[in-house]
Amino acid sequence: VTGKQLTIGVDLGGTKIETVVADADGTVLGEDLRPTLAAEGPAAVIARIADSIHEACGKANVAPAGTLGIGISSPGPAKPKEGIVTDAPNLPGWHDIHVTKLLSDAIGVPSLLENDANAAAYGELRFGAAQGLQHIVYVTLGTGIGGGIIIDGKIYEGASGAAGEVGHMIVLPDGPVCNCGNRGCVEALSAGPAIARDAAALIAGGKAAKLAELAGESPLTAKLVYEAALQGDDEAREIIHRAGYYLGLGLVGILNIFDPQALILGGGLVNMGDLYLGPALDTARKGAFPQIAADALITTAKLGSRAGALGAAALVISRPPA
Amino acid sequence: VTGKQLTIGVDLGGTKIETVVADADGTVLGEDLRPTLAAEGPAAVIARIADSIHEACGKANVAPAGTLGIGISSPGPAKPKEGIVTDAPNLPGWHDIHVTKLLSDAIGVPSLLENDANAAAYGELRFGAAQGLQHIVYVTLGTGIGGGIIIDGKIYEGASGAAGEVGHMIVLPDGPVCNCGNRGCVEALSAGPAIARDAAALIAGGKAAKLAELAGESPLTAKLVYEAALQGDDEAREIIHRAGYYLGLGLVGILNIFDPQALILGGGLVNMGDLYLGPALDTARKGAFPQIAADALITTAKLGSRAGALGAAALVISRPPA
Repeated sequence: VTGKQLTIGVDLGGTKIETVVADADGTVLGEDLRPTLAAEGPAAVIARIADSIHEACGKANVAPAGTLGIGISSPGPAKPKEGIVTDAPNLPGWHDIHVTKLLSDAIGVPSLLENDANAAAYGELRFGAAQGLQHIVYVTLGTGIGGGIIIDGKIYEGASGAAGEVGHMIVLPDGPVCNCGNRGCVEALSAGPAIARDAAALIAGGKAAKLAELAGESPLTAKLVYEAALQGDDEAREIIHRAGYYLGLGLVGILNIFDPQALILGGGLVNMGDLYLGPALDTARKGAFPQIAADALITTAKLGSRAGALGAAALVISRPPA
Repeated sequence: VTGKQLTIGVDLGGTKIETVVADADGTVLGEDLRPTLAAEGPAAVIARIADSIHEACGKANVAPAGTLGIGISSPGPAKPKEGIVTDAPNLPGWHDIHVTKLLSDAIGVPSLLENDANAAAYGELRFGAAQGLQHIVYVTLGTGIGGGIIIDGKIYEGASGAAGEVGHMIVLPDGPVCNCGNRGCVEALSAGPAIARDAAALIAGGKAAKLAELAGESPLTAKLVYEAALQGDDEAREIIHRAGYYLGLGLVGILNIFDPQALILGGGLVNMGDLYLGPALDTARKGAFPQIAADALITTAKLGSRAGALGAAALVISRPPA
């Protein structure tokens, strides 16, 4: 391995760091996964990313200096062009952290920054469910709901680098309050915490017995609600169904606005499968303009948790950092 | 005038045909406005467009053959690349009408087709409220609510030429039925017919006395509701305010998704001014992410009813028809 066409991709998340060393075809030659331990603060996390890069490079049998550079996928908000994470709610202490400079200094190769939804969208475009397409929207479904928009094969960043906040379309004006301050955003109705919140309200009302039993004293999560639904708790099932329905209302808007070649759904909630995605896709397909719904590939992400790291790695080639 | 840099722009609407002969700076050298008389069918309308072109060219003192070509803005749905209007609800009999071929044959210069919202968006970008910008969303507010999206200075058409249907974001799932079949689209809540429908319901309930008096036996229109509001009918005022509010909810989604440099509002309803746009812009600015709302120029269109014709004329230069 000469390493000349290899790049490093790092997906920095609130709970884990995922690093890949990949070639231009998206083949992963080395990989490392470790906890972020975000509570230790930016300096410790940067050092841990550097360790992860060295580990992944070791597995790929290439020196970091033998790669073309590092692509970093991070939670927003960020200023991707400047390489700065301005304020990441899931990374305590990360305020105006110049992550590209810190990592380039530590590793000795140039690096670039992209927000996680955009990086994952680009990963799916290059190596996943949307290969060969030009216009796609990727929607990530997890603790939050975000989006990555690709137009003409390029990430669309918007005027201030904040484009793609598809979770903050309002679909129920009198609905629950969202983290953004509005009521009834898709995120407030369909993200993981929304499912947990609705379940907690049910249990507080003496319902969803199976779920209450499963949860015991532990905090409610979307995953627990899903397990209760699988075990036959109809009320848990109904909560997930409703969350999927509201997601579908948002997807109608995305489809009608973008008329995309592909609408890709990724993120942890996709693992709930038909129980969640069924009503979402059904609502989306029925609600969008027939021509648009017929033309769009609507599917789940293929790269799973590697999408962000692989997308970031690919960006090093298409948008070479200085 | 040599005519070498002149282009012809035609805005074909359901009620009128607007034709301009313009130079590359958007200066109008000749203009013609005449009724569409759409009921007479496609052949008669095409002949009338040809007459309008000859009239406008005469005023500009240029032969049509001395121009670079014709840009046609038409109501959708259409296949812009193929030059075909597939099915225009406001133009009876227009099914798969190859309007570029018919006009090119009639006039003897090449022509191109663009849908009306996209053409108006491009007009505003080149010569109007968004000059010099790259990423804008134009929203047209009238009988319907549509949109034109400009990314990197180019019209974004989507996978099948249907992108920009911003009026069909769902913001009130149990709201009134929309022409598209959904409930609670922005168009079903905030377009002209929605305002007229709400007013008719009030009058049927014995309310909005001033409006009822104004309307007499004539059919209710948004314009009548506006006049009643100006004359102090509080219920008419409230209807317009509510329509503006729901429009604002849709604009929140547009801003958060696109993070545009500019959001331009055009179309006839803009003439209702603050009564309608006030609640819309207030809701949009408060509801969008602060960074996005701060960065976006949010304003009304500058070119008025000429936007579509001027945008179509400009497209002849940027996207020369064969």
